[in-house]
Amino acid sequence: MQKVFLKWIDGLRFAVSDENKHSFIIDTKQEIGGNETGFQPVDLLLVSLAGCMGLDMVSILKKKRSDLKNMEIVVEAERGPEHPKRYTHITVKIKINKEVAEVDYQRAFELSHDKYCSILATLKTPPDIKFEFVTE
Amino acid sequence: MQKVFLKWIDGLRFAVSDENKHSFIIDTKQEIGGNETGFQPVDLLLVSLAGCMGLDMVSILKKKRSDLKNMEIVVEAERGPEHPKRYTHITVKIKINKEVAEVDYQRAFELSHDKYCSILATLKTPPDIKFEFVTE
Repeated sequence: MQKVFLKWIDGLRFAVSDENKHSFIIDTKQEIGGNETGFQPVDLLLVSLAGCMGLDMVSILKKKRSDLKNMEIVVEAERGPEHPKRYTHITVKIKINKEVAEVDYQRAFELSHDKYCSILATLKTPPDIKFEFVTE
Repeated sequence: MQKVFLKWIDGLRFAVSDENKHSFIIDTKQEIGGNETGFQPVDLLLVSLAGCMGLDMVSILKKKRSDLKNMEIVVEAERGPEHPKRYTHITVKIKINKEVAEVDYQRAFELSHDKYCSILATLKTPPDIKFEFVTE
């Protein structure tokens, strides 16, 4: 079971926290009423995907004792022009230091892509999503 | 176009940033090799969904001049037992102060759910996802 908590602060800002008390602020663009004081919620889907795959790949490359010195990931994503402006295309660009053999990082990528990455799998097969309301 | 950046730090930690230089750390559980110094990537999908809907709802309730004083969202999600342990069930629990009329928060919810929330729409209709590698 994964669990996260959000609490509205002011404007369109929320404080976000997890079960281990890590916390950060989310906000949104000024053009839609925010104050840009934190990450936008829409960007966090991309972070979730890239973080999941990056973490898998680093973990696998370390187990292989690859000479990993640097990994940088840039995610670029296009959204549909009309509401709900869902993500239509996501491109994940992964840069790795040249000392890591191609066969090793390709294998690490394949294992994450085909077997381990929970977020990629969630994006491929829609989860069941329910909502509940409480007033007090 | 949305764009995010991740850079591996050490262990299984990455520094995450957006185009406006907001930044935070992601990490993972000790049992899979992390040090628990930041949010887990898998949790950020849930934050993305709840943040997107919370932000929509606050925005709509403010436009309606509802007496919104408090909104708290808890997301609980179940994952499959085997790799890739994708999210199978997500429950979003929204608590609002009782001064907000049910008809108002229900309408705000419906507008987010049916029209505005980019993340909910992305979770319902899988995006095209591509990967590119660079070594240097």
